[in-house]
Amino acid sequence: MPSPTERIDTAAGFARPRLEASHVRRLGIDTGHEHVVYLDRNSPICRSEGFGPHSRLSVRVGEREILAALNLVQPGWLAEDEVGLSESAWLSLHPQAGERVILAHPPSVDSLAHVRAKIFGKQLDAGALRAIVGDIVAHRYSSIEMAAFITAASGNRLVLDEVVALTHAMVQTGAQLNWQRPCVMDKHCIGGLAGNRTTPIVVAIAAEMGLTMPKTSSRAITSPAGTADTMAMLAPVELDEMQLRHVVETCGGCIAWGGAMNLAPADDLLIRIERALDIDSVGQMVASVLSKKIAAGATHVVIDIPVGPTAKVRDLLEAQALADLIKRVAAVFGLRVRVLISDGTQPVGRGIGPALEAHDVLAVLRNETHAPQDLRAHALHVAAAVLELGGAASAETSHVVASDCLASGRAWCRFQAICKAQGGLRVPGRAAFRQSVPAPCDGRVTAIDNRRLSRAAKLAGAPASPLAGLTLDVHLDETVATGQPLFTLHAQTPGELAYAMEYVSRHAHIIEVEVTA
Amino acid sequence: MPSPTERIDTAAGFARPRLEASHVRRLGIDTGHEHVVYLDRNSPICRSEGFGPHSRLSVRVGEREILAALNLVQPGWLAEDEVGLSESAWLSLHPQAGERVILAHPPSVDSLAHVRAKIFGKQLDAGALRAIVGDIVAHRYSSIEMAAFITAASGNRLVLDEVVALTHAMVQTGAQLNWQRPCVMDKHCIGGLAGNRTTPIVVAIAAEMGLTMPKTSSRAITSPAGTADTMAMLAPVELDEMQLRHVVETCGGCIAWGGAMNLAPADDLLIRIERALDIDSVGQMVASVLSKKIAAGATHVVIDIPVGPTAKVRDLLEAQALADLIKRVAAVFGLRVRVLISDGTQPVGRGIGPALEAHDVLAVLRNETHAPQDLRAHALHVAAAVLELGGAASAETSHVVASDCLASGRAWCRFQAICKAQGGLRVPGRAAFRQSVPAPCDGRVTAIDNRRLSRAAKLAGAPASPLAGLTLDVHLDETVATGQPLFTLHAQTPGELAYAMEYVSRHAHIIEVEVTA
Repeated sequence: MPSPTERIDTAAGFARPRLEASHVRRLGIDTGHEHVVYLDRNSPICRSEGFGPHSRLSVRVGEREILAALNLVQPGWLAEDEVGLSESAWLSLHPQAGERVILAHPPSVDSLAHVRAKIFGKQLDAGALRAIVGDIVAHRYSSIEMAAFITAASGNRLVLDEVVALTHAMVQTGAQLNWQRPCVMDKHCIGGLAGNRTTPIVVAIAAEMGLTMPKTSSRAITSPAGTADTMAMLAPVELDEMQLRHVVETCGGCIAWGGAMNLAPADDLLIRIERALDIDSVGQMVASVLSKKIAAGATHVVIDIPVGPTAKVRDLLEAQALADLIKRVAAVFGLRVRVLISDGTQPVGRGIGPALEAHDVLAVLRNETHAPQDLRAHALHVAAAVLELGGAASAETSHVVASDCLASGRAWCRFQAICKAQGGLRVPGRAAFRQSVPAPCDGRVTAIDNRRLSRAAKLAGAPASPLAGLTLDVHLDETVATGQPLFTLHAQTPGELAYAMEYVSRHAHIIEVEVTA
Repeated sequence: MPSPTERIDTAAGFARPRLEASHVRRLGIDTGHEHVVYLDRNSPICRSEGFGPHSRLSVRVGEREILAALNLVQPGWLAEDEVGLSESAWLSLHPQAGERVILAHPPSVDSLAHVRAKIFGKQLDAGALRAIVGDIVAHRYSSIEMAAFITAASGNRLVLDEVVALTHAMVQTGAQLNWQRPCVMDKHCIGGLAGNRTTPIVVAIAAEMGLTMPKTSSRAITSPAGTADTMAMLAPVELDEMQLRHVVETCGGCIAWGGAMNLAPADDLLIRIERALDIDSVGQMVASVLSKKIAAGATHVVIDIPVGPTAKVRDLLEAQALADLIKRVAAVFGLRVRVLISDGTQPVGRGIGPALEAHDVLAVLRNETHAPQDLRAHALHVAAAVLELGGAASAETSHVVASDCLASGRAWCRFQAICKAQGGLRVPGRAAFRQSVPAPCDGRVTAIDNRRLSRAAKLAGAPASPLAGLTLDVHLDETVATGQPLFTLHAQTPGELAYAMEYVSRHAHIIEVEVTA
């Protein structure tokens, strides 16, 4: 991924007042994604520039510039003219011996006026959205400013023109792939449903049937695992553009992490905040999805919308409105889409969490007898739509063609070839700490709460702890006996297991069992 | 101000998994308002609990608990079982020798589900708002979560019942003063207008005329100075409840910082984020204003709403809608209000910034010949309304009574007595660095942009640098000659002066001069 420093426009930046420090020190403090710069609290730089703790300031070394929060340290740690850098700041600026560090007030961010206008219900034009997205990609927005933009754009507050303009802005602020082919396939699932890891299976089938499917996926936004998180359990996914092209030329398809490609990078920055807030905005979701597809060079896209009371899309009306918005925005960009509205009343597959979902994918591809049949069926449904949209099969034959490709083992062979080209197939382990949640009574499973299952899997550590999550032991309408496991939590540490169990014990109805009369 | 630790409900907290550290070190790192805890990156606590950089975690010493962000340091700084604390974390927890530090995952914050519901347009009930405000006061919300709540509640998205419930929740989560008197006066100005520092003058007149006016004010939210910032230039404002009662008993009134009193403390926490985002939500504004008044024990309140194209309230319709909401919410709480809608087309007074506004206030109270007459007139207008609402004068006589009180020097004597009771009158200095902005042509002043003037004053350092800001050299409709100063920037450092000048040079029309024909 290009470092943030490369994308900051410094052309007009240094007419601003500034001060230089001749000494810079790597302090070895890991502050996560947030850049922090440290100065002595009696530093003349603070006095003359009016900097205080948590001021945001611009830090420049040579041509590289970042925005960082300021922390002040007690005398004795740093010389008065010395600047300390956090790990992320150091890695972005990588100062060389003898290079001077220039500190300045950050440029004022004029596009925030547009965010304020949006908060007050104004419609934003293309210029305003381009300015906002440009400033986000240039790392000029603080976390709370991004949170305000995301919130202001949530809850159906973007009209069609705004979604189109946002999509365009997100495409234009990143790299774009061009495959020089008339038909480049892609797929996307509007999440909210735990498990449901069809992509690796669909890509294997599409590629095996002669289509080009250079699939780039994201990490989880609000779910316990994204496709990239799951695929990373099976093969390397952080490919650069040359590696990705090689895999696609060799195998017809790939399953890579899109973030390594700088496609629509605004999305990757917004994702961190959306994940922390646990919200998605419909307009922003459509812009994110389509901008990634357009930037990745796709021409034909199948979009799966699972519908259920605890899925991201709750009912058919909402799904149709979303499908309509997707089609209208896609049409503006000449992108051909096929929308599938599917059953989202329960998770698809058994595992929830990166490694646990990877085990499900392997079982389906290998045609193992215990493979989750719901995942198999749904993957075939999506694959058939891809084959048909891409012209590799007719509407009549697409399902049987996909099915045969999987059952014959050809899809599995193709998947192994793809993994090998990406750097080698690997099989994930199992988490050391597990605990089952038993049925409270004899009865029938009447409801499964996707959101709370996802929350429990996340509290158990997914996706950061990749072996963590949970496995479903029952499905809707199954009959269970008292004490029979409903689901099993998996964790890599006892602390995380206890934390997830504490949540589960407070929410008895994650899986509802109704006493049979 | 009560430390945040006192307000965290720890009753159910420590059923959660946790780990203890026996050594704690004050690292002397000032991280501003954000608490940070430091651990060795190989600490077994991180491994067993799944903590990573920027995890939020609960830190407890004895009965005191805070939520803090985690930073990981390189080996050698801290022992593996040692915890480092930032300045704000250390001051909140003030660990004693031998006390153990307990680290745990933070409790899950269920009220965030209500924030998400609000983002998606749902109306929140009293229970939901109480839960949100309670969690905010207990410091359970991260900055981005507060930003999402503020944004979701902005742009007229709260209905009357929500504003009433929010007001009630904000009152109940803090202290409440009771004056045991039938008539306790207060006033408030819905900001947006630079300068306009009437409060000290109004309190002096009201107290002198026999009313009880225990005024508590806030620091600036989005402006270059709040009343508390300005008053702090003239006398100590950080009074505790006993000191405040003493001042009011002795003098009939006070002008104190409300934050020291723990009145509606949710507001003080939301203010920091609102200030950083530079937005106000109407419903939240009404809840903030009225909850502070109710908590302060006021029974009668005059509310001033300046209207102008660059004031907070832009037009008469908006002002009337706001006045209506204020009256309806106040009625629910039995609070008597009088709303004044006033001219907000230009700043009132000459100075903008804590010290510069304090100089204006002193000039008016002392009846100096160069005192800004617009500030004098507006203060008398508000004071007359206070006298009338409080029954100290009739509608016919209130203005002449107020005017006489000021002109006779009685208001100035009363103000000196109040300052003395608060700890002693002082007169602020002047900033060392000044620069005038000249008129670009001969002509007439046709418009003054309050927002950009405020922004320039803030860039010059106000309110953090209390002597900084700007002084207006002209008013609307005045005739000016080329090169004649329009306004003068004041700064405490050359860096801040240059920064403000850079902004001014990019925005030529802060004060519009039209060439006369």
